[in-house]
Amino acid sequence: MKYYIGIDLGGTNIAAGIVDKTGKIIAKDSVPTLNTRPIEAIMLDMTKLCKTLLDKSQMDINKIEAVGIGCPGTVDNKNGIISYSNNIPMKNVPMRKFMEKQLNISVNLENDANAAALGEYTANGHNASSYILITLGTGIGGGAVINSKIYRGFNGVGIEPGHMTLINGGERCTCGKHGCWETYGSVTALINQTKLKMTDNPDSLMHKISGKFGEVNGRVAFEAAKAGDRAGLEVVEKYTEYVADGITSVINIFEPEILVIGGGISKEGEYLLNPIRKFVEINEFNKYRPKTKIEIASLNNDAGIIGAALSANR
Amino acid sequence: MKYYIGIDLGGTNIAAGIVDKTGKIIAKDSVPTLNTRPIEAIMLDMTKLCKTLLDKSQMDINKIEAVGIGCPGTVDNKNGIISYSNNIPMKNVPMRKFMEKQLNISVNLENDANAAALGEYTANGHNASSYILITLGTGIGGGAVINSKIYRGFNGVGIEPGHMTLINGGERCTCGKHGCWETYGSVTALINQTKLKMTDNPDSLMHKISGKFGEVNGRVAFEAAKAGDRAGLEVVEKYTEYVADGITSVINIFEPEILVIGGGISKEGEYLLNPIRKFVEINEFNKYRPKTKIEIASLNNDAGIIGAALSANR
Repeated sequence: MKYYIGIDLGGTNIAAGIVDKTGKIIAKDSVPTLNTRPIEAIMLDMTKLCKTLLDKSQMDINKIEAVGIGCPGTVDNKNGIISYSNNIPMKNVPMRKFMEKQLNISVNLENDANAAALGEYTANGHNASSYILITLGTGIGGGAVINSKIYRGFNGVGIEPGHMTLINGGERCTCGKHGCWETYGSVTALINQTKLKMTDNPDSLMHKISGKFGEVNGRVAFEAAKAGDRAGLEVVEKYTEYVADGITSVINIFEPEILVIGGGISKEGEYLLNPIRKFVEINEFNKYRPKTKIEIASLNNDAGIIGAALSANR
Repeated sequence: MKYYIGIDLGGTNIAAGIVDKTGKIIAKDSVPTLNTRPIEAIMLDMTKLCKTLLDKSQMDINKIEAVGIGCPGTVDNKNGIISYSNNIPMKNVPMRKFMEKQLNISVNLENDANAAALGEYTANGHNASSYILITLGTGIGGGAVINSKIYRGFNGVGIEPGHMTLINGGERCTCGKHGCWETYGSVTALINQTKLKMTDNPDSLMHKISGKFGEVNGRVAFEAAKAGDRAGLEVVEKYTEYVADGITSVINIFEPEILVIGGGISKEGEYLLNPIRKFVEINEFNKYRPKTKIEIASLNNDAGIIGAALSANR
């Protein structure tokens, strides 16, 4: 059996695992990123984490074929360089070279959303010829697996579906453009939409629910809607329509065999999926051919580890 | 040398050519489609056209490897069936089987925009790993060539970039969805935008120019803008921004090495391209890696013939 190490380098934690070629995690562990440290210190902690995993599973490094690292930001996969990252301040960091020198083993760098898409595909992709992961989180991320391979565009930046325009001339996005899908469909956007509605509706159940959580988070409007709160339901219906409209655009472009939705909000499950499926069914361009299956992602945080590991299997 | 026949089945004309494997047209001809006839009559005219081309170039049919047909609408490439077409009324037409029986040669069916993309790629794609054609015409069409192959999605319907949403909840599109890019960026949309502005501006030069053309067409606002007409310029600026915003979305998703713009309006050349390039440069997500080249398509109507022919080279 071939084994790989996958590292999911996040803004908060570095998670890593030893993964077999079928995508099964043999051992996993994590350490805090402490993302304001110099990047060299973070990279040394990544190498330490690899060694911890090998010790833990009593495995020698020569049993590992390669290491894959999923990173946020703009990843130059071809040259093994993190061109730019915001979450963990990096600019032109030659991470592959550094890690290969430390570990004496082949290393692949991958955008984290692309890695997660490969992870989900390996676990539940049913060998689909085209497979898209959309993650609804702080922003909207995405990855495409076409003919079993990550699609990166020619420059490693693809795909960025969160930065399709949903409303021409709309709200300014963190990327600088106006009206990006993620300014309406991300959890950050949902929280803003919830807060606005709460201000306009002082009697809404959302106030009580957010008090219970100690904050206005992405669950407040959903909990309120499920309890029959009108204002909460309005927030959920509008938000779900924004999400569904963007998903329809992605489907009209890629016509993927399977599209899965991940990120924290995907825990709402069928309550989120049903109206999305209904919107897509009514609005998608394809009316005469088999339809894209829309599902909830299944791996949660492990998708990044598994996908990073298998991205190294080139 | 290998030769193919490419047929571009359009709503008005059936154009066909004998094409060598490098994409060079050896002979071409066309006949009117007369698109209200029974489809069998149209298909028999397509076979006649093939024979005319062979006679014209004194070539025997056994020198032809295969025939490719580019069709409007929803094409089931795998099973050789036109699932649905609006321009030429068709529903579940087994065109491949019919044509193979008539010609006794292998036939491939392809969506016309996908075929055109392959044609442009072959002529001017410079072996780009990812290549997108966007056509601005009655609607907005598109095709993607990824690793030298047409990307069709899993069901033959991909790609339909004209049916990405540009304005959530906006104008109703012919596809049934609201706010599709093509309801703002197609030539049909440009003509509507021109007419509206003319009504509000009785003194605009656009009235004189449309009088000269005998109609309000896609050139009226551009001609007026170039002659210094303020209202004409406003139409062109707004229209170009709609086009550029959609192009930016396509680039943010595919990150193609090259994106080319075709269709009638592309004859405006640099006058259209310059503001699009400027908009994309400011607004695209990719800020740290090599950029997508944006060009005008070069083949005009021959793209469909060449692409259809080479799509048969499987």
